[in-house]
Amino acid sequence: MSKINFDLSRPINIIVAGRAGIDLNTIDISCAFKDNRGYTKTVGGSPANIVQGLAKLGVKVGFIGKISDNGMGEYIKETFEDANVDTNGIVFDKTGAPNCVAITFIKTPVDCGSFFYRNGTADLLLEPSEISQDYIKNAAAVLLSGTAFSQSPSREAMFTIIEYAKMYKTKVIIDIDYRPFGWKSPEETAIYYNLALASCDIIIGNREEFNAVEYLTMRDNRDNDKSAKALLNSNASLVIIKDGEKGSIAFTKDKEPIRCGIIKTKALKTFGSGDAFAAGLLYGLFNDMELIDAMKFGSACGSMALKTVSCADGLPKYKQVISYMTENKFLD
Amino acid sequence: MSKINFDLSRPINIIVAGRAGIDLNTIDISCAFKDNRGYTKTVGGSPANIVQGLAKLGVKVGFIGKISDNGMGEYIKETFEDANVDTNGIVFDKTGAPNCVAITFIKTPVDCGSFFYRNGTADLLLEPSEISQDYIKNAAAVLLSGTAFSQSPSREAMFTIIEYAKMYKTKVIIDIDYRPFGWKSPEETAIYYNLALASCDIIIGNREEFNAVEYLTMRDNRDNDKSAKALLNSNASLVIIKDGEKGSIAFTKDKEPIRCGIIKTKALKTFGSGDAFAAGLLYGLFNDMELIDAMKFGSACGSMALKTVSCADGLPKYKQVISYMTENKFLD
Amino acid sequence: MSKINFDLSRPINIIVAGRAGIDLNTIDISCAFKDNRGYTKTVGGSPANIVQGLAKLGVKVGFIGKISDNGMGEYIKETFEDANVDTNGIVFDKTGAPNCVAITFIKTPVDCGSFFYRNGTADLLLEPSEISQDYIKNAAAVLLSGTAFSQSPSREAMFTIIEYAKMYKTKVIIDIDYRPFGWKSPEETAIYYNLALASCDIIIGNREEFNAVEYLTMRDNRDNDKSAKALLNSNASLVIIKDGEKGSIAFTKDKEPIRCGIIKTKALKTFGSGDAFAAGLLYGLFNDMELIDAMKFGSACGSMALKTVSCADGLPKYKQVISYMTENKFLD
Amino acid sequence: MSKINFDLSRPINIIVAGRAGIDLNTIDISCAFKDNRGYTKTVGGSPANIVQGLAKLGVKVGFIGKISDNGMGEYIKETFEDANVDTNGIVFDKTGAPNCVAITFIKTPVDCGSFFYRNGTADLLLEPSEISQDYIKNAAAVLLSGTAFSQSPSREAMFTIIEYAKMYKTKVIIDIDYRPFGWKSPEETAIYYNLALASCDIIIGNREEFNAVEYLTMRDNRDNDKSAKALLNSNASLVIIKDGEKGSIAFTKDKEPIRCGIIKTKALKTFGSGDAFAAGLLYGLFNDMELIDAMKFGSACGSMALKTVSCADGLPKYKQVISYMTENKFLD
Repeated sequence: MSKINFDLSRPINIIVAGRAGIDLNTIDISCAFKDNRGYTKTVGGSPANIVQGLAKLGVKVGFIGKISDNGMGEYIKETFEDANVDTNGIVFDKTGAPNCVAITFIKTPVDCGSFFYRNGTADLLLEPSEISQDYIKNAAAVLLSGTAFSQSPSREAMFTIIEYAKMYKTKVIIDIDYRPFGWKSPEETAIYYNLALASCDIIIGNREEFNAVEYLTMRDNRDNDKSAKALLNSNASLVIIKDGEKGSIAFTKDKEPIRCGIIKTKALKTFGSGDAFAAGLLYGLFNDMELIDAMKFGSACGSMALKTVSCADGLPKYKQVISYMTENKFLD
Repeated sequence: MSKINFDLSRPINIIVAGRAGIDLNTIDISCAFKDNRGYTKTVGGSPANIVQGLAKLGVKVGFIGKISDNGMGEYIKETFEDANVDTNGIVFDKTGAPNCVAITFIKTPVDCGSFFYRNGTADLLLEPSEISQDYIKNAAAVLLSGTAFSQSPSREAMFTIIEYAKMYKTKVIIDIDYRPFGWKSPEETAIYYNLALASCDIIIGNREEFNAVEYLTMRDNRDNDKSAKALLNSNASLVIIKDGEKGSIAFTKDKEPIRCGIIKTKALKTFGSGDAFAAGLLYGLFNDMELIDAMKFGSACGSMALKTVSCADGLPKYKQVISYMTENKFLD
Repeated sequence: MSKINFDLSRPINIIVAGRAGIDLNTIDISCAFKDNRGYTKTVGGSPANIVQGLAKLGVKVGFIGKISDNGMGEYIKETFEDANVDTNGIVFDKTGAPNCVAITFIKTPVDCGSFFYRNGTADLLLEPSEISQDYIKNAAAVLLSGTAFSQSPSREAMFTIIEYAKMYKTKVIIDIDYRPFGWKSPEETAIYYNLALASCDIIIGNREEFNAVEYLTMRDNRDNDKSAKALLNSNASLVIIKDGEKGSIAFTKDKEPIRCGIIKTKALKTFGSGDAFAAGLLYGLFNDMELIDAMKFGSACGSMALKTVSCADGLPKYKQVISYMTENKFLD
Repeated sequence: MSKINFDLSRPINIIVAGRAGIDLNTIDISCAFKDNRGYTKTVGGSPANIVQGLAKLGVKVGFIGKISDNGMGEYIKETFEDANVDTNGIVFDKTGAPNCVAITFIKTPVDCGSFFYRNGTADLLLEPSEISQDYIKNAAAVLLSGTAFSQSPSREAMFTIIEYAKMYKTKVIIDIDYRPFGWKSPEETAIYYNLALASCDIIIGNREEFNAVEYLTMRDNRDNDKSAKALLNSNASLVIIKDGEKGSIAFTKDKEPIRCGIIKTKALKTFGSGDAFAAGLLYGLFNDMELIDAMKFGSACGSMALKTVSCADGLPKYKQVISYMTENKFLD
């Protein structure tokens, strides 16, 4: 493979599936929760970040997910609509479930993260019967967030998307997005990731995430080549392994691995950078860039995203990325 | 009864039991969630408001509850310690459960409230075995929040407190604090409220809450006298029925009901006012005020609490209450 | 109290509430499960045994419980109807839940018991809303099986019966019937038994069962007098403590405890004997016997029940009890 | 494919995985539950029937499953050991879960079946971490019962077996064994059957079961050829569709479908016949029979199994099958 073959004649380039929540972004940085004075709000959650990033770059995107039937859900839907994200795949929960929320803290650029509210939330209640075959048929690709496989019935809704994608030759992309919360055991995690990955065309994750995937079958492997080979021998045609400050590596069936460095910057926090990378990378792939160029574009997006307190605000527009790439140098 | 007989020789006047959570208080008012720009944070939840209110008035208080074992929990504990709330009855959850959170909105002073995050939270995981007999023995009274009876094992922890309180003649006070969320059915609600109220000395609630209590036994009753009489015939010696703008009524075994009006004020929101009332009322009872004076003191506190965005910030100090009562008139 | 005052003008003398299941009675005795050749079937479960025993003695009885909506449930209902047990309080489960089943084994008269199938069974799904006020109103007494308090919503259905019984002055009798299965912790067990016992007129149990009741409040107590006094000081007017081969003791408010011995017999098994005792004792109380005579009558029934493989078959008729009492001697 | 290539040098020919329970076999036939006088007991459950059938025919078999840690479990294990079923893959449950039980009824040869006790039973609690890689490695094939995919963690244990089987080139056989009980929705059923079948070499089921498999992807299909082709195009090399009185059809990748008739007999009941067929068919495949001959052998076993009250007793020995085939004619 040199390039992935997306059917861009379909009305939607890519549908992102998974959670869309509220990020409550700390106003104060360099302090613990107790010393924060307050929060601003944006729409967040890894899949929501990716879809907002893609939309900002001009990709034709849709979203599949379940949101709360209250002011929070309305805010998410309106935010997506304002950002040109197609919301026909969004379902309002009717059981009274709350929406997921992440309350962020940034003690240092490294010791940062979120208090997550994901217990019994609307996103995990998406049902297989709420997935529309036609919606999947109308998209060139779907991107599934691995976290959406962590609990039923969201897990089964994701496998339903995969079944429909196979029926209509919609490409399947997964961002492994592994977070221990919500999974019952490392065995369970490995099983469902393996079942999902066996049907994916493009797989994106970091080393820790591939370790989780390989827990049952290659528990001691830490070798990226070996991880990628196993997946390329199965169904995948592109495996991207992210390695933080060292950049990322792309594995394809018939070529040598391609390495891409990063643009070093003064980071405010680390979370959200991977989502911006994925958005940029996919923008490149949808716009016929060479793989290395798409990776560089994604890498620039990821670098830019390190510089804002909120994830959503860190997602750049095309011109901003080009300027940033002109003004800064890639480290190998 | 003219006055309740508290054993004030015990080291703690009153232990409040139930949830202590994070209030994320809307910065903007008169707008929907989507238009809010941000939030400040305080420690909230009805029992946490009451205990903070009592502490601010100088009552010797303790708290029983379970909080998350992370920055949020630490913030709650430190806030209580700084406020002179004894925290020896507080337990850190070891299962990774999040702390409860309420994200407030104030569209109008009447259309206001919170997005609650109470699903699987630490407060509801308090176990009967985590209740210390000695702690209950050392207090003149315990105040139980009715919401803590909504789910197991918190429900059983509350009944354990009641058992120990009976053993040591610690007075039992309940704030009915009925919220439909968390309860499975109106029958279940009525059953456990009845079982709890049968052992309470002082009962505080509004008409809607008494309706919930009476769902099985007097479903059509809307008569405060009848409600109070049933409880006074059982175990209670004081029943307070709150009636919003109309003030409150106190029922005792052998005297005529006592009515207390309110101090009218321009309200910013309504929630939290009842907690301030309870704190003020109990302050009065612990400080040997006549019942009508304690009610007036509580009523002034409730009025003052209507004027701030956050509940915690609306809880007054003694001198502030006295000034407020001097400067304003009670409506009957 | 010398005699309990039942309102025998009501159409039903006593309603028994709890589980009615299938007993699969081992054909072979003196062997382990693996060597049994087969089973016969009867209707069993402690409350079903008691109600069948009462009916056989001629008491006007009804039953409250939920049974499976299949051939098993139909068999139970028909068996009750054939035995003159009023079945208007029986509800068929509509969720597809199976009926409870006990598969018995008798290795020795002492090492005997059952494999219980009680997980998610119909009896535990009885809802508070399925309890009829009028049905309770029409009975002189209700007998609640303690096991029915072990899980929701059956637990709440039992408390609903208690509320209605109080409204209509229907006497409340409890057979503690404590089995660890189904309860989450000894604290939970103690809490709900205490809440239930606080409203009971007659309480029947053995020493181990009273230990479970007293786990929170008198954990080290093994003194029957102390146990009985605590309950008689609350609401009970009769407490019966069974002591196996040593017979039983009856405690009342104002008289000395009454001891009743047993009729020694060659036992085939031990289970079911307590149910026959309860049926006989209550027969006596409903038929104006002196307490000691009712106890003797119950004790004879319990002795007779030791001699059959199945519980149901061991329940005697009045004339059989009288003959048995004439032919055999009580040991003190 | 003409023949499946099993590695018969491995110590075990085939491991069967799934539930092993107690069948309580009605003594009386032609009557409803209420009129049955009693029951005999055998070890049953579809996978237990298959493994006992294979063992009786002399195949080297093992079993993977979880059983109750009491007399029932011991009876199952001893029965297996006596029948030459290797029990090294059997795990005793340590949570106190009961063993699954089926209580059979035979009103007519057609209106017959079981009361199932499968709620929270030991078999469904098998954990992925309890599956031994080495055990799978030492077998030429594994046969998975589809019902074991219906609930977690048994579902994940089955997928773990599949992962290990792939690692060691152990052939994977599935008996779809679809029973609606235990599954949450037809979508969920279809998803997990599809995920499982995608890794199976041999697939055995009837038309209704293939309908359940195809619920998401070919909901209206009733065409066996189409069903088989879809699976053969994926991973399967042999698909057997059973059609009751019409016999069975075998589909392979490169040959015409092979049809096999039945030996007509006076049936006592219908259940258990499919398990005997599977045992006979696999016996044939392990013993180098031509596919049509293996099918005939299986079909004879299935016919013989119709004639006994219990499933286990209907499983024949090799010589019995040969005699039966000699004495009876196949109908096409």
